[in-house]
Amino acid sequence: MRVLILGGDGYLGWPTAMRFSARGHEVSVVDNYSRRRWVDAQGSDSLTPIRSLDERIAAWKEVSGREIASHEGAIEDPQFLEGVVAETRPEAVIHYGEQPSAPYSMASRENAVETQHNNVIGTLNLLFAMRDHVPDCHLVKLGTMGEYGTPNIDIEEGYIEIEHKGRKDTLPFPKLPGSLYHLSKVHDSHNIHFACRIWGLRATDLNQGVVYGIETDETARDERLCTRFDYDEMFGTVLNRFCVQAVIGRPLTVYGAGGQTRGFLNIRDTIQCVELAVENPADPGDFRVFNQFTEQFSVAELAELVQKAGSELGYEVTVDRLENPRVELEEHYYNATHTKLLDLGLDPSLLGEELVESMIETIAANKDRIIEPVIEPQTRWNPAEPQPAAG
Amino acid sequence: MRVLILGGDGYLGWPTAMRFSARGHEVSVVDNYSRRRWVDAQGSDSLTPIRSLDERIAAWKEVSGREIASHEGAIEDPQFLEGVVAETRPEAVIHYGEQPSAPYSMASRENAVETQHNNVIGTLNLLFAMRDHVPDCHLVKLGTMGEYGTPNIDIEEGYIEIEHKGRKDTLPFPKLPGSLYHLSKVHDSHNIHFACRIWGLRATDLNQGVVYGIETDETARDERLCTRFDYDEMFGTVLNRFCVQAVIGRPLTVYGAGGQTRGFLNIRDTIQCVELAVENPADPGDFRVFNQFTEQFSVAELAELVQKAGSELGYEVTVDRLENPRVELEEHYYNATHTKLLDLGLDPSLLGEELVESMIETIAANKDRIIEPVIEPQTRWNPAEPQPAAG
Repeated sequence: MRVLILGGDGYLGWPTAMRFSARGHEVSVVDNYSRRRWVDAQGSDSLTPIRSLDERIAAWKEVSGREIASHEGAIEDPQFLEGVVAETRPEAVIHYGEQPSAPYSMASRENAVETQHNNVIGTLNLLFAMRDHVPDCHLVKLGTMGEYGTPNIDIEEGYIEIEHKGRKDTLPFPKLPGSLYHLSKVHDSHNIHFACRIWGLRATDLNQGVVYGIETDETARDERLCTRFDYDEMFGTVLNRFCVQAVIGRPLTVYGAGGQTRGFLNIRDTIQCVELAVENPADPGDFRVFNQFTEQFSVAELAELVQKAGSELGYEVTVDRLENPRVELEEHYYNATHTKLLDLGLDPSLLGEELVESMIETIAANKDRIIEPVIEPQTRWNPAEPQPAAG
Repeated sequence: MRVLILGGDGYLGWPTAMRFSARGHEVSVVDNYSRRRWVDAQGSDSLTPIRSLDERIAAWKEVSGREIASHEGAIEDPQFLEGVVAETRPEAVIHYGEQPSAPYSMASRENAVETQHNNVIGTLNLLFAMRDHVPDCHLVKLGTMGEYGTPNIDIEEGYIEIEHKGRKDTLPFPKLPGSLYHLSKVHDSHNIHFACRIWGLRATDLNQGVVYGIETDETARDERLCTRFDYDEMFGTVLNRFCVQAVIGRPLTVYGAGGQTRGFLNIRDTIQCVELAVENPADPGDFRVFNQFTEQFSVAELAELVQKAGSELGYEVTVDRLENPRVELEEHYYNATHTKLLDLGLDPSLLGEELVESMIETIAANKDRIIEPVIEPQTRWNPAEPQPAAG
């Protein structure tokens, strides 16, 4: 199958590219390296020493004997993107090509506009390019569980049947996203749904939980194939950041009460879910939504897990409860349905002490690369509120 | 009160500016004249001979003795908009400053991107300018009933209480918008709601129905104060277009079965609703949604009304059912709640033959200005579908 991966140089995009290539698909990747630039601009860097995309692709060829084609450019540039779609004629597009950080989007007006422009207009360009060149192509779009927020009812997979005043309809699940980044994903979901309804495109929206982990089958094959691993306040996800804090002997930074509950999944399961979505495409005209995570945890539970795993390895791990820099519920109901990917055959790698210990060991091996000042939260959701005390 | 009106040179913006000025408020308007340029680029023109904004403002001063301040610029330009907000320090912002046409947004990728960029980024710039300069200011935003689409349940005013698996929550009403323009308004609603939740801003989203009519108390005071009146396929709303077709002896262009039902209101009621929203502001942190229309009609019912009113005046009016250039349900359930503005005191001017006759007379007086070729629909929602036969 011809597979086009947008954001193919990223944390998830690069391992995805290798997986589809390993399976014998004809893989092209698009990236403009904005993630590398954004992280660099924070004064941060990937914990793992990642190679340039060209070097990665050459190493992959050496290791696997397979070719990955690459196209450097921005999806916000319509001529560039249309040219790539027309040339590669993908049967599946896997779309990771977005600004993925909530704190980044909240740091300034400029960042907010960049995030919503990059994500919404980039995806809109993609929808038109697909409509005009490959209308039968299946779009697999990375969304986020954060689109739903934390409603007081069970979260369903994209749609909910509503009975109201004696009538009934199945409608998009109402969204209460928690940042301007999450909002950009909600906007995307609405635009993609529309393209399916009106133009008959086919799409799967993967509302992904928080991803943790470093390794996939392909990244493990050669050190030059490792994927990036961010731990800073902007691009580091919570469990990854906690493991780094454990290794350098800093307290784990829990924001507020720590009762914030979210869905989580291993990076290995991300790759598996995307494979399942591509292998089982949506029907023409169908906008399908899968909730892509394997387990729910509260932030306090994750901190406890890292404490345990750390102490097994001889680290003394403490926890600091910071004043929450975000505006969010710190104790709330949370129960999200996530059966559709399981029904397609997802076999989850669940989170346990063993996995956390192996993450901590990988981090310890790169300990000298850790840049401490980028870890503490600097970005406040509401700058008018009093500055949170540093932990 | 200091009132800032974005899009203050438009069909609704200009009459709104005069109304608030007439009531003694300190009115500033912002416009970059994009509506004039868009209509011009279609080869169309306002049926009513409108003056430049400067001439209108001078005529208003002559007639009323009152000043309206104007600022020429685009709300997508953050420095310009922030400067205006910081300088005028509004207590209420009335936001009409958006690309308002569904067909325009569907005509090309360029138009779609322009619409979503203009509307979403412009509004985002406004939210940041309000947060940073006038956090207590009340935003009155023009949304559209088209955000809801045509669900099979009653449409509520912005929110719906959902009972699901034994739990309950009140959540944003799910949206199924029918064009990329309508989507831009949905995106705006989500962004504004967020700004209220996170930053404590206060806003009223006026989900407006289809507006008809030409005259308000203020436009009637001097011919130089008339507002624009569009009848082309892109910027003309359906009843206005039908009245023009009646006058020039062309069949009324009903798209498809004509069972499409929407909420409608007189331009006089738009002005009244905006006044009611400003006089009764939302609380800080509150994102309030009003459904702003007074009556529901199907397109076929409107065509019949124009036929009747036209024949009273001696016009022979016929109806042509065109193949629908849009992708939409042509027969559907539609019942939308709209009590909140009535509760605040809205006194509707309902649609009757008399009003239609007076519209037809005003149009007839400007008959020589009508440009026929711009009326027939050219823009198809799905260009892959067979071309509709011309009527």
